[in-house]
Amino acid sequence: MPASTDLLSRADLDFLLHDWLRVGDLTERPRFAEHSRSTFDEILDLCADLAQDRFAPHNRHSDADEPRLVQGRVRLHPEIRPALDALAETGFLGVTADHRVGGLALPRVVHLACAAWFAAANVSTYGYAMLTVANAHLLCAHGSPEQIARFVTPMFEGRFHGTMCLSEPQAGSSLADTMTRAHPADDGTYRITGTKMWISGGDHELGENIVHLVLARTGAGESGVRGLSLFIVPKFLVGDDGSIGERNDVSLVGLNHKMGFRGTVNTVLSFGDGTHRPGGSAGAVGYLVGAPGEGLAQMFHMMNAVRLEVGVCAAALGYTAYLKSLAYARTRPQGRRPDAKAAHLPQVPLVEHADIRRMLLAQKSYAEGALGLTLYCARLLDDRETAPEHAERDRAALLLDILTPIAKSWPAQWCLHGTSLAIQVHGGYGYTRDYDVEQHYRDSRLNPIHEGTHGIQAIDLLGRKTSIHDGAGLQVLDEEIRRAVAAGSRLGPETSAHAADLDLARARLLEVTKLLHAHPEPVTRLGNASIYLEAAGHIVLAWIWLEQLIALGDRDDAFARGKRAAARYFRSYELPGVAPRLDLLASLDRTTVDLDPSWL
Amino acid sequence: MPASTDLLSRADLDFLLHDWLRVGDLTERPRFAEHSRSTFDEILDLCADLAQDRFAPHNRHSDADEPRLVQGRVRLHPEIRPALDALAETGFLGVTADHRVGGLALPRVVHLACAAWFAAANVSTYGYAMLTVANAHLLCAHGSPEQIARFVTPMFEGRFHGTMCLSEPQAGSSLADTMTRAHPADDGTYRITGTKMWISGGDHELGENIVHLVLARTGAGESGVRGLSLFIVPKFLVGDDGSIGERNDVSLVGLNHKMGFRGTVNTVLSFGDGTHRPGGSAGAVGYLVGAPGEGLAQMFHMMNAVRLEVGVCAAALGYTAYLKSLAYARTRPQGRRPDAKAAHLPQVPLVEHADIRRMLLAQKSYAEGALGLTLYCARLLDDRETAPEHAERDRAALLLDILTPIAKSWPAQWCLHGTSLAIQVHGGYGYTRDYDVEQHYRDSRLNPIHEGTHGIQAIDLLGRKTSIHDGAGLQVLDEEIRRAVAAGSRLGPETSAHAADLDLARARLLEVTKLLHAHPEPVTRLGNASIYLEAAGHIVLAWIWLEQLIALGDRDDAFARGKRAAARYFRSYELPGVAPRLDLLASLDRTTVDLDPSWL
Repeated sequence: MPASTDLLSRADLDFLLHDWLRVGDLTERPRFAEHSRSTFDEILDLCADLAQDRFAPHNRHSDADEPRLVQGRVRLHPEIRPALDALAETGFLGVTADHRVGGLALPRVVHLACAAWFAAANVSTYGYAMLTVANAHLLCAHGSPEQIARFVTPMFEGRFHGTMCLSEPQAGSSLADTMTRAHPADDGTYRITGTKMWISGGDHELGENIVHLVLARTGAGESGVRGLSLFIVPKFLVGDDGSIGERNDVSLVGLNHKMGFRGTVNTVLSFGDGTHRPGGSAGAVGYLVGAPGEGLAQMFHMMNAVRLEVGVCAAALGYTAYLKSLAYARTRPQGRRPDAKAAHLPQVPLVEHADIRRMLLAQKSYAEGALGLTLYCARLLDDRETAPEHAERDRAALLLDILTPIAKSWPAQWCLHGTSLAIQVHGGYGYTRDYDVEQHYRDSRLNPIHEGTHGIQAIDLLGRKTSIHDGAGLQVLDEEIRRAVAAGSRLGPETSAHAADLDLARARLLEVTKLLHAHPEPVTRLGNASIYLEAAGHIVLAWIWLEQLIALGDRDDAFARGKRAAARYFRSYELPGVAPRLDLLASLDRTTVDLDPSWL
Repeated sequence: MPASTDLLSRADLDFLLHDWLRVGDLTERPRFAEHSRSTFDEILDLCADLAQDRFAPHNRHSDADEPRLVQGRVRLHPEIRPALDALAETGFLGVTADHRVGGLALPRVVHLACAAWFAAANVSTYGYAMLTVANAHLLCAHGSPEQIARFVTPMFEGRFHGTMCLSEPQAGSSLADTMTRAHPADDGTYRITGTKMWISGGDHELGENIVHLVLARTGAGESGVRGLSLFIVPKFLVGDDGSIGERNDVSLVGLNHKMGFRGTVNTVLSFGDGTHRPGGSAGAVGYLVGAPGEGLAQMFHMMNAVRLEVGVCAAALGYTAYLKSLAYARTRPQGRRPDAKAAHLPQVPLVEHADIRRMLLAQKSYAEGALGLTLYCARLLDDRETAPEHAERDRAALLLDILTPIAKSWPAQWCLHGTSLAIQVHGGYGYTRDYDVEQHYRDSRLNPIHEGTHGIQAIDLLGRKTSIHDGAGLQVLDEEIRRAVAAGSRLGPETSAHAADLDLARARLLEVTKLLHAHPEPVTRLGNASIYLEAAGHIVLAWIWLEQLIALGDRDDAFARGKRAAARYFRSYELPGVAPRLDLLASLDRTTVDLDPSWL
């Protein structure tokens, strides 16, 4: 087997990208006209090799040798920077950007497939690149040409890195309570003061500079989230000629020491506390992005991109853990089958046991389903921007909007569970740091927390995404599922049975959604939003699996049989769990609402 | 609040032990006649204080400073030994043993409640004591008076420690493949050779000696598990006068480096490799326990005790994580309720949010349910030995037998999930090593693996415990549930609704069990054993919650209302998940059975 087999399945990526998502067709659109299937494949090959050769080798090293403060400076594991430098040298960082900013206009869906390789190899090191790219893209969309030239170009070149600074110590998920302030200075810039928490990549010496994107409140603005504006606050000021200037007043307060994801330094940053005094004045120098009061909307540009990246990173961790536990199960002899237990018989490999197969199929259904969903969403990003018809673009935008909370939360929840099953397949060995799955599990536990917790995604889905635009998002999703159901029911018995089960769940979800939306009382309506998110998530994944079954067509090789087994697992073992969740939602259960906390 | 509130709830223990399990009534039996409710309470107080003062303070220290090899010797974190010495000084180690071996004949159920305190405080340090006690009790049951005097007494005094040596590198769960051999020597002892893996407490310097209980194959025996005998293999030989003699030929091969549970050293041990040559001869000196070929049956004495201990440790970790996340949720302001979102309003504590309450109630239902189940099983241990009527003892034995795989696996699975929810309640902070819940989660991940994996418990339950003695165990369990259902249905609407839902699930479980047992083909019959274990587990826990509801009687204070809310959570959110699992089992689904591993 090739060396990269352990990280991800290239055969599956080819299937998802080409047989299902038909990314080759994108080259018929003007934006992607210079590309071809073979350039897509070459980029995937390049990234797979780079992930294997430069990212995977230090994954465990940078976990064991976590970031630390040495004389006030962040000391990262020394293998991180060369990997990121090698990545930047390929031009990968700007690969989806417009030609006008030095990009290659590669489809987002191909980029996300590459991201999966890096995340499978080393999610912590990839985190630096991911944040930098997302930051740069926000500025491409909302920054001025001068801001793009000064900050974005060096980020795409890998010389500058980027962060997103939203949370504060007193307000994690509650952005309405942001206290960081921006005061206008005489020269058109702002002076930023405040403390930001949970800032990944907040300080390090991986490049020449760090571009912080900071949500802050201008004095004049409204309270709550509407008063927030977005600012570029570089670690070092940048001259008109692009030269690195004075140290800005951004200082490192401390590091957070995490269970996993340790290679990505996570920081508390202080802005404008007087540690540094650029130009002799107080406050960190910040540059307003776009117009005042638009900070949150702009930040959502980056947040939505990052949420999808969290989804693909979660999927990649679940995927690589699956492949590693599969390899282990194939080679490790242990026990005998219940129909051939005699002790004189040789032990069989773990994979011969039904319960091990169940755990492998569960992992496969989670990982391949999650990867499929996130790639589908990335293809929607492309369609939103480049589909030939206006209506098609709007439709892609609606669908992406409603799928984003699921594409973030479902892989986070279920691929974490998948990594736990990967440990279980390894038995005691999986619990030791001698095997990779131990780290994948710890790394994965972050995914339901960062970039909007599970509960935040749930409220976003039930409280907003299913109802805005008169429920147009849910309607488009429902239509897509029904289209697949119709196509699937014309196929063989397995696929049509899958379609039939999915259709029942789909109809029930619509019904329950209407019932909830009709409820006048917001606390009750949203009280079980997380259960709703989980029910909707399983239905969406059953649909993604139906799409994959349909894309298989008549194919009947081992690959296709494996896909069908995973889809059947999902239909038989997972989808039936949706009904009791929807029943609970339909009952408008008030157990949590009526609880008096003093009873706990 | 008293300092020990954070670890466990004494109010709940009082409720479970006294109001529900009526442990005071045990003092009417001759064995416990010298005790009274007040002596039970005093011992609980003493253990709670000791856990708080001596075990909890170094829980994080011994996690960060894990065991390591220094010049061939195991170096443990220095706070571990004083804590264990303090525990031994209280006489706790032999507290349930007979007076004839220096014990206090305390009921097992009281002992297990004490164990919960120590595990909540520091499960890794408690692990040494737990193994020593279980080892000593096996020898009390099966060892000769001379063996008891030589090895058990020093263990109860805390001078010797004990291990159980079952697994080998090539055979983790598959004891039939044990290769360690025992050759009879001329003096009636044996010489042991082989390698044992995953040995907790396998080497250290916490006391004067370590008593290994080793499963090994005598040359004459049959193959498989029937050829296994049990041997005492001390680290140091012990003279007739109890003096510590020569080093036995047991040597440390290496340490396993684990995700959690780090304070408990886990080792690979080599027996009889010639590192040491006691008496100049080859092989480690071993003393046969009881008769040859009875090793596995004897070891099950210890394994069943340890499985129950794993259950209570899992429950304690889930419990303390629950209490810590509850304390955090009560004090941390974050966001606003959906019916009062205006940004000028102050933030509310996390506990005001429905989704946080859901996560707290889930944790409470898992932790208090799991603790209840394990204490119930410990009470069965007492009844099995001391109930006045012979029939009652038999009944307790049957019930304990069928409940043990559930009492081990259910707390392991669901309290692990509970610790994950405890992290989620903390948000990003919960993922950092600044908060205890991060460690509780890592520690908890071991519980579905050690002392028989989840899959092993599943096969034990479906393949053995539900069918032996013509299904008498299942019948007794069913009768107990029906008795509770009958009692519950005479009470208020909440309790009778709980009883009704439970009764339906109970009847369906019986039906599905019969269907599975009737299936001629063992691979299909047992293929979904893990799903069966999980379905049966949730039904048993719904019963345990019904028992608690009944025990509450008319009580209507905050404690009782909290219990009712947790029971209602379990009935509304958890129990309905049983039906699709039983449907899957009834369908005799062959997804895993028919899978060709080459498809994966």
